[in-house]
Amino acid sequence: MRILISLVSSSTATGLHLPSLSRRLHTKISPFSTLIHHKPSPAMAASEDSLRRALAEKQSSIESQGNTVRALKASNAEKATIYRGVAGLYDYGPPGCAVKSNVLSFWRQHFVLEENMLEVDCPCVTPEVVLKASGHVDKFTDLMVKDEKTGTCYRADHLLKDFCNEKIQKDLSISAEKAAELKHVLAILDDLSAEELGAKIKEYGITAPDTKNPLSDPYPFNLMFQTSIGPSGLSPGYMRPETAQGIFVNFKDLYYYNGNKLPFAAAQIGQAFRNEISPRQGLLRVREFTLAEIEHFVDPEYKSHPKYSEVADLEFLMFPRELQISAQSAKKIQLGEAVSKGIVNNETLGYFIGRVYLFLTRLGIDKDRLRFRQHLANEMAHYAADCWDAEIESSYGWIECVGIADRSAYDLHAHSEKSGVPLVAHEKFSEPKEVEKLVIASVKKELGLAFKGNQKKVVEALEAMNEKEALDMKASLETKGEVEFYVCTLGENVTIKKNMVSISKEKKKEHQRTFTPSVIEPSFGIGRIIYCLYEHSFYMRPSKAGDEQLNVFRFPPLVAPIKCTVFPLVQNQQYEDVAKIISKSLTAAGISHKIDITGTSIGKRYARTDELGVPFAITVDSISSVTIRERDSKDQIRVDVEEAAPVVKSVTDGHKTWADVWANFPHHSSGPVED
Amino acid sequence: MRILISLVSSSTATGLHLPSLSRRLHTKISPFSTLIHHKPSPAMAASEDSLRRALAEKQSSIESQGNTVRALKASNAEKATIYRGVAGLYDYGPPGCAVKSNVLSFWRQHFVLEENMLEVDCPCVTPEVVLKASGHVDKFTDLMVKDEKTGTCYRADHLLKDFCNEKIQKDLSISAEKAAELKHVLAILDDLSAEELGAKIKEYGITAPDTKNPLSDPYPFNLMFQTSIGPSGLSPGYMRPETAQGIFVNFKDLYYYNGNKLPFAAAQIGQAFRNEISPRQGLLRVREFTLAEIEHFVDPEYKSHPKYSEVADLEFLMFPRELQISAQSAKKIQLGEAVSKGIVNNETLGYFIGRVYLFLTRLGIDKDRLRFRQHLANEMAHYAADCWDAEIESSYGWIECVGIADRSAYDLHAHSEKSGVPLVAHEKFSEPKEVEKLVIASVKKELGLAFKGNQKKVVEALEAMNEKEALDMKASLETKGEVEFYVCTLGENVTIKKNMVSISKEKKKEHQRTFTPSVIEPSFGIGRIIYCLYEHSFYMRPSKAGDEQLNVFRFPPLVAPIKCTVFPLVQNQQYEDVAKIISKSLTAAGISHKIDITGTSIGKRYARTDELGVPFAITVDSISSVTIRERDSKDQIRVDVEEAAPVVKSVTDGHKTWADVWANFPHHSSGPVED
Repeated sequence: MRILISLVSSSTATGLHLPSLSRRLHTKISPFSTLIHHKPSPAMAASEDSLRRALAEKQSSIESQGNTVRALKASNAEKATIYRGVAGLYDYGPPGCAVKSNVLSFWRQHFVLEENMLEVDCPCVTPEVVLKASGHVDKFTDLMVKDEKTGTCYRADHLLKDFCNEKIQKDLSISAEKAAELKHVLAILDDLSAEELGAKIKEYGITAPDTKNPLSDPYPFNLMFQTSIGPSGLSPGYMRPETAQGIFVNFKDLYYYNGNKLPFAAAQIGQAFRNEISPRQGLLRVREFTLAEIEHFVDPEYKSHPKYSEVADLEFLMFPRELQISAQSAKKIQLGEAVSKGIVNNETLGYFIGRVYLFLTRLGIDKDRLRFRQHLANEMAHYAADCWDAEIESSYGWIECVGIADRSAYDLHAHSEKSGVPLVAHEKFSEPKEVEKLVIASVKKELGLAFKGNQKKVVEALEAMNEKEALDMKASLETKGEVEFYVCTLGENVTIKKNMVSISKEKKKEHQRTFTPSVIEPSFGIGRIIYCLYEHSFYMRPSKAGDEQLNVFRFPPLVAPIKCTVFPLVQNQQYEDVAKIISKSLTAAGISHKIDITGTSIGKRYARTDELGVPFAITVDSISSVTIRERDSKDQIRVDVEEAAPVVKSVTDGHKTWADVWANFPHHSSGPVED
Repeated sequence: MRILISLVSSSTATGLHLPSLSRRLHTKISPFSTLIHHKPSPAMAASEDSLRRALAEKQSSIESQGNTVRALKASNAEKATIYRGVAGLYDYGPPGCAVKSNVLSFWRQHFVLEENMLEVDCPCVTPEVVLKASGHVDKFTDLMVKDEKTGTCYRADHLLKDFCNEKIQKDLSISAEKAAELKHVLAILDDLSAEELGAKIKEYGITAPDTKNPLSDPYPFNLMFQTSIGPSGLSPGYMRPETAQGIFVNFKDLYYYNGNKLPFAAAQIGQAFRNEISPRQGLLRVREFTLAEIEHFVDPEYKSHPKYSEVADLEFLMFPRELQISAQSAKKIQLGEAVSKGIVNNETLGYFIGRVYLFLTRLGIDKDRLRFRQHLANEMAHYAADCWDAEIESSYGWIECVGIADRSAYDLHAHSEKSGVPLVAHEKFSEPKEVEKLVIASVKKELGLAFKGNQKKVVEALEAMNEKEALDMKASLETKGEVEFYVCTLGENVTIKKNMVSISKEKKKEHQRTFTPSVIEPSFGIGRIIYCLYEHSFYMRPSKAGDEQLNVFRFPPLVAPIKCTVFPLVQNQQYEDVAKIISKSLTAAGISHKIDITGTSIGKRYARTDELGVPFAITVDSISSVTIRERDSKDQIRVDVEEAAPVVKSVTDGHKTWADVWANFPHHSSGPVED
């Protein structure tokens, strides 16, 4: 195995934790707080021992596989590190880079092209004002403690979590009561304030893991990388923690570009940055990562979707709120049923859940290790209508890889407020609608005479009355002829007489409705999806001689970093020439491939490319025809030299399957050369 | 015209300057300094008035075109800016983003796939040590002055340049002598030290442009965005100023991945960041931009290239050093001739120059406004073997868009030295070579008796002798039996006797040669290429009625943001259904398109899409067959409904040209419906 994903930096820890990808603000500034916690997982939180044992068994079986994948990658970590690495920053080597580029191309095809989305590309360096409006400057924080002697920093919740888990798992002497207490702490961990966390750390006598020194009180650390734009030092900026804000600030233009019509979706692929206090879990929680985000803007009153019927029949693992609270497992539900029963809030949200399912399974994610988990009430922000995570099971547990949220109008509202620019949409009525409106008409002449220089403030106060206040005043004026009225800008009561103001309800014609669109946001953590894809694609099989286990990645052609290899069977000028001709036509057809003219045995060469996940191998064993071998079945067909590239193109393009090709070409059984 | 490239920020200046894209260190730390300066352009520096006039005329004709393109873009700038923008940071709207994504796909096809390059993907956040080794931390600076009262910052050289240019152009009273002096200052501007720049600013009484306040002395400002990795504040990091360093630090792995064979190339596409003091020229000098870089590693002794013959016959505008120094213009030279005459240093460099020429012209860059300019001796770093810039003429003048440099072994050496890890390659000899080697064998026993605790230092000093020193000692010992020897680590002379050391020359067999590879680096400023592409693709033509000028972008299908539109000729359910069927098959074929079912006249709809550069329009005017219109010729053919998508695919894929299709389908002459 060559470099899969070569790691320049070394990961700092490899514990078994369930991460949360979309550390969006809603999970941070949620005004709700409850005692039911959902980490490390709802099932575990409500756990009975039996449940935990079952989970542990499952973990351990998949863990061995994950360990193999990790070992394959880690074996390259040291070599790559010519400088001591920094945690949380990784380089993708050639195969990883090619897989990433394939995943992103398919994302563009499956989402952007299919839905005619408006793709944009905004800078990573973001002026402070944008992230002030979004709330990130004030609230995008984790609680941190410092080793009081060395200054080393730790995430406060991680230390408390590790302490509790270790006590529960390893300390056999603790009482049932104590164990229950620690479990309770784990359950409420995310809802603890800085003070409560600090108190627990003190109570349990938790010290710095490396030195056993005392720890500081927890305090918030902002997770954005800060920098300064321009030379003055007066324009703070941040590396964006997500790409979504770039779409929201451009909403007006995008709406215009779409012909002032709703619904439409904008999309963006790009780097995002989070200055994690202590990155863990290798490629799963990193400091820089690629996000692919969609913001689908929709009229809040019409959340149906024209193509919904195309996904309504899909059936897959869903994990609605109710199942989590009652400590059950995810179960297969038909998407259409989930929407019609109101489990999924609306059709558009359901449509994207279905599309995400298709995207992930077509990439090669195992559908039995993929579930859609609904956020619990306390996980969601107060403004969110509904939120589902696509979670993929890996050796680290269930990993949140895609978040699909109906964020209502929150983001556009926030930027409207901060910028003073209305970010709204209009619905033109087919014919004008009659509406009753309150009209407060001040009689300037009378008010001027009565209040002189204060007139303006009195007028403003009168016109700012709400309907009830205005109608009360109208009634008082009609019965008493005058009324006392408090003008807050003057700080005193004034006397309003009947001739100073006329209050009435009038019928008006309106030609359009103005509203802030809702946004439905599918947000993809590309690195996490790729990591899980590597795990789900990996298997081992015995060599022909049976003396060793060979590694294989079963990447579909769509994803495979290299689509095809070309091998002259033996070292021989004629075969090499044929190989070069085939290579040239593969290049012309846009098919990435590798040519291997070394004298290594053909079996070894197959094994090497299986290990890279190359789906097809062309072997040149004559000057007129060649064989094509499929990786997983090891089946071979025989084709003419000039047919080789077109056949490989048809099966890698997805126009044909291997079965189609297998049915149409003569089969070739490998001779003694394959080991 | 909708958003071409929507600008979130406002550009600060639009003067006519010639920028330098690849502010690589070599141009900063060059030890050479000369009086011949090459900015604003070699021709201008050596200018006679006639030359300058000719240039000015040419400028003004292309400027009017540039102004149109800029105006089209600027018209959207304000709308997009919901917050006051920050200079030097731009958003790409949907068409700009699509063009960019097409340019990058083609780059991957034309370079990475064609040459089997190893593509990598490294983070933008870079630990300090990497950029310390590369020299960026210490030397990647511009000289800056501050308004002493307001603190506003300016680039010192810009102020001096603007002052000189304005004096020369506008002050008719200055003497010929003074004018010559100012021209000389312009010529040596880039070579002035901080002190010299400061002295000139004082001498000419230059003040802050906005306030006329006095200015500080010039001081270096580092152009990298600085940040801090992790929570401790102790790990400084920078946003990478180029992607190349990520490849150099991974050299060992990449060499291994390539089977320990040279030559090979690695490639990377990604964001780069430069915290410009005062960004100018809109999209041409920005603070964040996309770079696509290739590092082709090659044995310094074999710089031939196997595919060189494929480009050797190309002929295009080249601007070698000699022509610049003698104030001539660029001229058409055959690439093969330039290499064989030694104008281009070597075949591999020549090969990449040819490939870059093909890349740019296939994108749609006008070959008559593209030249390859060689760096002058004082522009290049001392280590560079040769360097050529692909410059594209735009309304801002000749813009450096691609740099193609033979950087010798500089970068790998620098990282070897800093990291202590040898970054080298080996050439295995086909049979071992006999070499004569000096052998210095210390006789430990005798040395131990004589020097006791100092023995180790004496041994090290003996073994560190070079050949001449050792042979001198050998001669002395043979004649005198002993010799005084200075051991620097002891700081004193010791007496070496004949029995303490044996010095001899021995024949040894060597199996391989170890060396540091040279690197040839083509580096592409993607945003600049796209900007020039917009300018070169733009033209205007009269509407059919002749009453207005219509804008057209003649993007080749490869680049066009949208490949095709689908228009029902009139609003009618049957035509709309056909349009939807065609749209569906275009999506399935992966062709980006737009469907427009508004009742707008077909002529207006064509004009709109011409303005976006859409090459083909399908018009549904019956339920069995449709027309396909080509943008530039406005020619139309008639095809069956089910043929529409395949025909468009064949011409956008590049498998067929419009001429092929035109020859094979019935022609359609537009009726009175076209505008």
